[in-house]
Amino acid sequence: MKQPEREIDPELDEILPLHKGGKTRMISRCKLNTVADLRKIYTPGVAKVSKLIEADPDMIYLYTSIGDTVAVMTNGTAVLGLGDVGVKAAMPVMEGKAVIFMEMVDISAVPLLVDTHDAGAFVEAAALLAPTFGGILIEDVAAPMCFEIEDRLKDRVDIPVFHDDQHGTAVVVLAALMKALEATGKKAPELQVVMSGAGAAGTAISRFMVAFGIGNVVLCDRCGAIWRGRKEGMNAAKEGIARATNKANEKGTLREVMRGKDAFVGVSAAGQVTKDMVRSMARDPIVFAMANPIPEIWPHEAVEAGAAIATDGRHLNNALGFPGIFRGAFDARAMDINEDMKIAASRALSGMAPKGELVPDFMDRGVHRGVADAVAGAARKSGVARA
Amino acid sequence: MKQPEREIDPELDEILPLHKGGKTRMISRCKLNTVADLRKIYTPGVAKVSKLIEADPDMIYLYTSIGDTVAVMTNGTAVLGLGDVGVKAAMPVMEGKAVIFMEMVDISAVPLLVDTHDAGAFVEAAALLAPTFGGILIEDVAAPMCFEIEDRLKDRVDIPVFHDDQHGTAVVVLAALMKALEATGKKAPELQVVMSGAGAAGTAISRFMVAFGIGNVVLCDRCGAIWRGRKEGMNAAKEGIARATNKANEKGTLREVMRGKDAFVGVSAAGQVTKDMVRSMARDPIVFAMANPIPEIWPHEAVEAGAAIATDGRHLNNALGFPGIFRGAFDARAMDINEDMKIAASRALSGMAPKGELVPDFMDRGVHRGVADAVAGAARKSGVARA
Repeated sequence: MKQPEREIDPELDEILPLHKGGKTRMISRCKLNTVADLRKIYTPGVAKVSKLIEADPDMIYLYTSIGDTVAVMTNGTAVLGLGDVGVKAAMPVMEGKAVIFMEMVDISAVPLLVDTHDAGAFVEAAALLAPTFGGILIEDVAAPMCFEIEDRLKDRVDIPVFHDDQHGTAVVVLAALMKALEATGKKAPELQVVMSGAGAAGTAISRFMVAFGIGNVVLCDRCGAIWRGRKEGMNAAKEGIARATNKANEKGTLREVMRGKDAFVGVSAAGQVTKDMVRSMARDPIVFAMANPIPEIWPHEAVEAGAAIATDGRHLNNALGFPGIFRGAFDARAMDINEDMKIAASRALSGMAPKGELVPDFMDRGVHRGVADAVAGAARKSGVARA
Repeated sequence: MKQPEREIDPELDEILPLHKGGKTRMISRCKLNTVADLRKIYTPGVAKVSKLIEADPDMIYLYTSIGDTVAVMTNGTAVLGLGDVGVKAAMPVMEGKAVIFMEMVDISAVPLLVDTHDAGAFVEAAALLAPTFGGILIEDVAAPMCFEIEDRLKDRVDIPVFHDDQHGTAVVVLAALMKALEATGKKAPELQVVMSGAGAAGTAISRFMVAFGIGNVVLCDRCGAIWRGRKEGMNAAKEGIARATNKANEKGTLREVMRGKDAFVGVSAAGQVTKDMVRSMARDPIVFAMANPIPEIWPHEAVEAGAAIATDGRHLNNALGFPGIFRGAFDARAMDINEDMKIAASRALSGMAPKGELVPDFMDRGVHRGVADAVAGAARKSGVARA
């Protein structure tokens, strides 16, 4: 199978060498050149450090790496757009995420594959390992399993647990939406939003917009709007969404509920939105069509149909969020990453976006530092900081 | 509690700074300076690597870090000589172990605290995480739980699982014993050994001496010799020992069974052995008194009582074993670390020990390379190698 693939994809020859042997590596911060070194960093000297931590477990933050170390965990059930490709095939993605952590915000990130489709078993393994880490990033776990894993794990541990496909995406989308509101003069409390796609990202974005104070959000899945009382294609997560969104309990297809709305946010599938549908929206509509790799509607088509702001997913880089969010949580030694901290991250990103752009430049380390400072501040203000 | 300790221990001021902020750190092997870099090491480029591994899971060894990464796992139930100090207090030791791996044999080592006293839960967590690693080193887990964990985990995974307190110690002790036999002209098949201490190390050393072909081993615990039919203070591990050792089914106290024996190997407690007991042994006895920090008998006392070779634990450094053993297992991509590989490690160590010494110099990286080559060779010969 490999040879044909390589023949038809010249890009692969450029990509593969970068991944060879893995993209991450644990290293020692100590020199080990003499037996005297060994006796200080290992036995018998290390026993003195262990005793200090035994007497005061908080000392683990001072004398071990855990306060600066995040676990990047997956079970491989929703890897990028590839679906359930198995834990092993998820490893290059976890290492990539770890590289971003290490390069952007100097957090030591440990990829961990958790080989189970059972939410309870995943939670149990993660909870038992939690003392090793300052926080846990969950990645590429399919909905609705990801909701159950995150909720149960948060109950079990006193360190931040953050499912990036949900909350990282939501933070970046809200940042971009803040900028779009600024550009169009629309106001958050009056804004009417249609979301399309009720997986991990769509659900989290919807809830986060509500938490931020967006006037109304109607989330659509394949069966149309999710409303209180709907029977078709519901599950626990969608019942929760029906209660938390859709103030007027609107019913109908995506096409129907889009009429008169101020903004469309899509994380669904290619070509779901037509020019006609954009034309049916309120004046100067905002269109974030982020289906990957082909958007719900191409930005130029949305603009032709009257959109004031239109973008696809490539410009709303997910990796703008999680590095600074964890850096800030670690700086404050936060027990949780709460809504206040996430909103602070969105505000910081929005504030740093250059004129004419929805979000700032991912490559600018100052951006991640700015997010971190905002998040640490919000952690302290909201009472979840320990430092 | 901390201040008094610091005041009475000037050594601490020399040791603590080395541990500050932790001794390990994950780093990136890739540069991340442009969005083009990002698109190759992360999404969308990384999807191509994931697809290769999905099609051929073996590719994970080529395009991720796992083949060179070992998990260093503990539940903190037997940390050094400190006992059950909890997982957090074990972290400095795990990091120390990781430093040795990284500095001596260039293996990326990930410390993992597993917060449970339940063997089944430990095994479950370790097995679910196993796809992340090329091997698992278990460390500082109390006996008899460590035996159950290792046995069950080996059944679950197809990568090496190695409890260092057992097998690492056994490999180094056997290496030293080989040198002592050479020096005294005694022969392994006729050798009569008394072991003292039936914890993880004593049990493993006894079994390993038998596997190597030592004539007879009698293992003593607090109740004296372990024999077939004994009722007092037995458990499943000791029943196994009774069957595997003590050919003549000797009974009695340590003092009684030491009479006429060729060698004493102790991993028990300070002062268990007197000069009289050494005098009661066979001609030119070998005395390895490794109780920590005070041996069963001081080497100079053993020599005064007629020992041909006498040493305490400080000279038989445990860290001589595991780095080269894992390096060799990884070089051969071994599915297991079997008896042949461990015996090859002992022979290699013994062969590299300078004249007049029982073991070679830990600081010599060439020693670890020598062990690795011997172990990889034995892995290939014994049919557990995949490379």
